[in-house]
Amino acid sequence: MRISAEAERQFLEAVFKAQQFNAQDGALLADTLVDADLRGISSHGIQRLDWYTRMMKDHVLEPTHQPEVVKETATSLLVDANKSMGQIASGFTMNKLIEKAKKMGLAMAVIRNSNHFGTAGYYSRMACKHGLIGISTTNTRPLVVPTNALEAFLGSNAFAFTFPAKPHPFVFDGATSVVSSGKIQVLAKKGEKIPGDWAVDENRHVLHDAQKVEDNLGTIAFSAHRPGGGVLTLGGQDEVNSNYKGFGNSLIIEILTGILAQGSLSADTNVGKHDFSQFFMVIDPSVFGDLDVLTANVSDMFDRIRHLKHLPGTKIMIPGDREYKHYDENLVQGVSIDDKTIAEMQAIGQAYGVPVPAAL
Amino acid sequence: MRISAEAERQFLEAVFKAQQFNAQDGALLADTLVDADLRGISSHGIQRLDWYTRMMKDHVLEPTHQPEVVKETATSLLVDANKSMGQIASGFTMNKLIEKAKKMGLAMAVIRNSNHFGTAGYYSRMACKHGLIGISTTNTRPLVVPTNALEAFLGSNAFAFTFPAKPHPFVFDGATSVVSSGKIQVLAKKGEKIPGDWAVDENRHVLHDAQKVEDNLGTIAFSAHRPGGGVLTLGGQDEVNSNYKGFGNSLIIEILTGILAQGSLSADTNVGKHDFSQFFMVIDPSVFGDLDVLTANVSDMFDRIRHLKHLPGTKIMIPGDREYKHYDENLVQGVSIDDKTIAEMQAIGQAYGVPVPAAL
Repeated sequence: MRISAEAERQFLEAVFKAQQFNAQDGALLADTLVDADLRGISSHGIQRLDWYTRMMKDHVLEPTHQPEVVKETATSLLVDANKSMGQIASGFTMNKLIEKAKKMGLAMAVIRNSNHFGTAGYYSRMACKHGLIGISTTNTRPLVVPTNALEAFLGSNAFAFTFPAKPHPFVFDGATSVVSSGKIQVLAKKGEKIPGDWAVDENRHVLHDAQKVEDNLGTIAFSAHRPGGGVLTLGGQDEVNSNYKGFGNSLIIEILTGILAQGSLSADTNVGKHDFSQFFMVIDPSVFGDLDVLTANVSDMFDRIRHLKHLPGTKIMIPGDREYKHYDENLVQGVSIDDKTIAEMQAIGQAYGVPVPAAL
Repeated sequence: MRISAEAERQFLEAVFKAQQFNAQDGALLADTLVDADLRGISSHGIQRLDWYTRMMKDHVLEPTHQPEVVKETATSLLVDANKSMGQIASGFTMNKLIEKAKKMGLAMAVIRNSNHFGTAGYYSRMACKHGLIGISTTNTRPLVVPTNALEAFLGSNAFAFTFPAKPHPFVFDGATSVVSSGKIQVLAKKGEKIPGDWAVDENRHVLHDAQKVEDNLGTIAFSAHRPGGGVLTLGGQDEVNSNYKGFGNSLIIEILTGILAQGSLSADTNVGKHDFSQFFMVIDPSVFGDLDVLTANVSDMFDRIRHLKHLPGTKIMIPGDREYKHYDENLVQGVSIDDKTIAEMQAIGQAYGVPVPAAL
């Protein structure tokens, strides 16, 4: 069913208030989920609420905790999220980095003891609003099988890169693996098949049953038991098509997050501390040239690419095109929510005394 | 045939001296090619000498020119290579960035009016020798077809990321596309087939004839004519396996190089200025934690990954494992050079009065 984005926001803010988040934190948290649903990234929208709520019950996430700066230089920040929500620590950190980058040309930060932060693109877009380049990454639960491996170790390790452009910013935002677990979760919730080579079993054979994969990933990610299989690296099943490049990209994010922040590796978040780490960078492109010129040049390049000869019946889309189109459409038609998520919202709404919005 | 790395170096230095490079520039240029051949990256070794020599004749590359700093802040550099060789401008820039990063925690640079710079990893490894993280990227001639496109636009846009580790640094180094054009060139020179889904024709059908692909790429990259087809983005032929992520990665490099440096796009280097742009970054990880601890932690992680359960008959290799193994082996057994490259070396040796080294 579809509900209005505004109704989704009110529902979420009321739930987060009942869950003891302060008003500012609850508003940010709600905004990140509504924003994802508006952009058609439903894997990172309100369908995560049920998981977030379970995290509070498990005390992996503490709604009243606040992030704090552990170490700081003119160009860097090390932040301890103190088990606050990833969105809260990330918003806090990005705002500080934007100020630093405006003064110093560029700045970077790592966060430890953090949680899931929603879409990576949310924070890189914050930088973009100031004419700055934003980079945003996180490690995750263990999900991804390295090249030739039969078991998961890496996280899906999202990476976002945003650059000012017209008519909308360039927003590259996604898991470094073939897909995020959220994308498989959404298919499983809808009872649909996996259409590509996304996940493998303990023998590295490709699986297409989304529910089976989702169950397996759930065991890997949320228990001490590590059955084989998991999500593939970008490049797919075989070395011959350079899947070690996707593996390398995922490893780089693992280094920038868990290693630099001295938090847990994705591989170890299934037990113990369950902490995630994040890495952010902000770059001021105007140290190299006039921002208006750079923006015009990059926008021209995108237009040329959009108009290249292409396969009949397809479109060439620049990263961001799809999500800004969905954003405009969903602001009018409402955000689409699957039946299983609606059921979860009803249970949570009941527990916290918050009515679920009516269908549009 | 195989020749000793030392003999390769002497041959190259003598040729570069005859080509009017000064001794320091010639030595650096030779070192980058010998280093690539030692590491088994023959696509970026001495087999490029013939192309480099043609670039001088076409005045795309000017051996006596030197790079200069156009714009500088405490954390950034904009360098004009002045048509000097990519290696020379890149070495010059990386040395300055290393000093800046030691003072400021991180620093970045772009170079314009540059040329091919060899392997991206050479410069990121320079940072690693100082306990710093190195990032190194370049745009290239147009070679790569965006998602759904039938014609090339992007470069193969190499990206290297290096992090201090034991027993050797983590060195991720490669084209953002499925493969570099050099890899196809090497197969064509050997008369071998393309083993995977690397390149497509004007209808986006996969091609396996390396010579046919090499001829097509040559036309695309070196003439005003743009026949269809080219190299695929990482993720392969179809959107369903997220080839738009490989496309996005390539676009990010295009933005960081041609756009930020205000040089040509890869798409436009086939005609006119033929200039490439590079982007570099150096990060001091010790602003976040003790370097010895970080190095130990990352090395532990790599060891855990190397020992994951894996497909029988395969190995799990961390980026850098293969090239450091080749380096040690080739230092003893000599570097392997294909027959066509030997013939090119003979012609060049004759033209400049430099004898070609004997086979080991």
